[in-house]
Amino acid sequence: MSVTAAAGFLASGLACGIKDSGAADLALVATADRAPVPVAAVVTANRAKAAPVLTTLAHLAATQGRAAAVILNSGNANAATGAAGREAAQNTCAAVATEIGCRADEVLICSTGLIGIPLAVDRILDAVPALASTLTGDGGAAAAAAIMTTDTRSKESLVSGTGWTVGGMAKGAAMLSPRLTVPHATMLAVLTTDAEVDHVTLASTLGVAVDRSFNTIDLDGATSTNDTVILMASGLAGPPASTEEWVEAVTTVCADLARQMVQDAEGATKRARITVTRAASSSDAALAARAVARSQLVQCSLHGADPYWGRIVSELGSSGAAFDPERVAVSYGGAKVCDNGVAADHDAEAVARHLAGVDIDICADLGLGSGEATVTTTDLSPAYIAENMRTS
Amino acid sequence: MSVTAAAGFLASGLACGIKDSGAADLALVATADRAPVPVAAVVTANRAKAAPVLTTLAHLAATQGRAAAVILNSGNANAATGAAGREAAQNTCAAVATEIGCRADEVLICSTGLIGIPLAVDRILDAVPALASTLTGDGGAAAAAAIMTTDTRSKESLVSGTGWTVGGMAKGAAMLSPRLTVPHATMLAVLTTDAEVDHVTLASTLGVAVDRSFNTIDLDGATSTNDTVILMASGLAGPPASTEEWVEAVTTVCADLARQMVQDAEGATKRARITVTRAASSSDAALAARAVARSQLVQCSLHGADPYWGRIVSELGSSGAAFDPERVAVSYGGAKVCDNGVAADHDAEAVARHLAGVDIDICADLGLGSGEATVTTTDLSPAYIAENMRTS
Repeated sequence: MSVTAAAGFLASGLACGIKDSGAADLALVATADRAPVPVAAVVTANRAKAAPVLTTLAHLAATQGRAAAVILNSGNANAATGAAGREAAQNTCAAVATEIGCRADEVLICSTGLIGIPLAVDRILDAVPALASTLTGDGGAAAAAAIMTTDTRSKESLVSGTGWTVGGMAKGAAMLSPRLTVPHATMLAVLTTDAEVDHVTLASTLGVAVDRSFNTIDLDGATSTNDTVILMASGLAGPPASTEEWVEAVTTVCADLARQMVQDAEGATKRARITVTRAASSSDAALAARAVARSQLVQCSLHGADPYWGRIVSELGSSGAAFDPERVAVSYGGAKVCDNGVAADHDAEAVARHLAGVDIDICADLGLGSGEATVTTTDLSPAYIAENMRTS
Repeated sequence: MSVTAAAGFLASGLACGIKDSGAADLALVATADRAPVPVAAVVTANRAKAAPVLTTLAHLAATQGRAAAVILNSGNANAATGAAGREAAQNTCAAVATEIGCRADEVLICSTGLIGIPLAVDRILDAVPALASTLTGDGGAAAAAAIMTTDTRSKESLVSGTGWTVGGMAKGAAMLSPRLTVPHATMLAVLTTDAEVDHVTLASTLGVAVDRSFNTIDLDGATSTNDTVILMASGLAGPPASTEEWVEAVTTVCADLARQMVQDAEGATKRARITVTRAASSSDAALAARAVARSQLVQCSLHGADPYWGRIVSELGSSGAAFDPERVAVSYGGAKVCDNGVAADHDAEAVARHLAGVDIDICADLGLGSGEATVTTTDLSPAYIAENMRTS
């Protein structure tokens, strides 16, 4: 019920035949009165943006940040599909607009699935009437289920503020290294709120929230062609009394959805939080934490529960961040294994116990300044390879 | 015999006890008359440079590019070992100098193995007399064997020029993404020549040769703390008549050693040459080719022989290189599967046959300019994870 938890939103989901499996693959989120409301979006920084991403950006520009609906399909990314792909995205938005009675540019669109495969848009167009006619106030779960690809679980979240609510749904299980410019991964998320917030405030809030949540995940360094996060505000609950509470609520929903993505990461057996402290700057901290997080060798060590901190130091040194090999300290679960750049006496059994667990905490103290950043990653397992070696 | 093929060089190799297995782990290359000759080196760009790398750089600076010997050990990288590590490297060079009768700063040093483990330098110091006394003109193979770590084969190469010779040895099987600043991976290589070439020319030649060889490998994006390539010139055969032939010979030896590293890559079942053409600039081409080469998802597709070019387009788009999604073309083994950014009609059986092979050719034409670059990588296999998940 999450994406429909805020007053003023309906959703639906069904199978239109894009997925050969017959699983649900088409979702719609719309305002209850079918009228446009303020909306903000952040999309992938990838230069190979998929057609739906380009269409969403164009529509947001034309309306200056208003939308009445978001349609989402799974099973095909409609990326690297050229003019036909752009036409498919535009026609889909137009079909939704006709059904619900708004302008075509008041409909946003997201797709996720394989890249480079022509989209069977007719199946979507044929299903739009049924999708629109089944919109309900408790359709959030159906919508969340319809956007799944390799996800094993649907992902929903909800935070109640003082008199208002923020809810959301998301999908994403691999190709996760969102850098949403604010984002990126194939991850999609739609958030709704009944708080009364204008487009500009929505955009700035979403930027902050995404930076603190989706953009701190890096599972495989892959920035998808389709990543999109959308936030719609119906305004029915009036303006939030506290800006802090509002930003915190949106951030919490994004962080919860990001956490669910990491927990559902393809083939992963462990999750690791890489925190870099005392970097020369916060951008250096982010650079260093991301380098460690996406290191294939570090991910192999995580898989084997191997306390080989040398690989962490090596990645920090080649990350591009300012680095002094005589000052670095590395800890696993709070136990310092490297201090001043050399091996430190530590409780090897405590470290082994920590690494044997599912949630690993790695901290690298660069000893240079006050920059701090945390990036979450997973281990690299044979199951990840098995899931990704064949797409067809 | 490669590192001793050029006139004026001797080598030796033995087991000094750094490796628990008892395998050979210490090698020495020296001039036959124990006198210093012009030398050049390129080392890792990693800021966490190992003690032997720092010692080699300091010695080269002190002598302005002259050396009489290079000592190399495997089994321990002497990296992240602090002041004790630096002292160990310096004492090792001093011990070699005493044995062969040169200055300590005329001895260079390389180490490879695990990071962060204190080096049992006494075992090296105890073995230096035996190492020096067994130097011979056919000791190249013994030296090449003694620098192996996870390598399954020793790596040697030889090119004969007009009246002179360039030979070399190398090690390296993973953590291969040399960016030698010229370099980086844990890869070590020592080349010798009897051509008469001064330090400045050696340095510029080696820079060009490394850029065209070791720096075009990217197996896992890891830049080691220890990568070093050294080139020594005895001068006994006189100056090369042709500069072109000379540069070509050094490049060929480096490229041959790089090729042997890729063939011996940990757990790899396939090799792939990623060529990017018509990029906006040659640096953009290198950026784009490297992004594709180190993509975990592309490497999974290679492992599964899956012609999923969408991942290649996605990596090109997020590489940072200028990119127009409407202009890109992608080919496997010459068969164009994507043209103008969309799926192209192609012979699917021919593509399947090509991808089923061991040597894969992937070409991405960006359609923007004249920049070109090639990077070699491998597939990502469960065996890579198995080899790297536990180091102890």
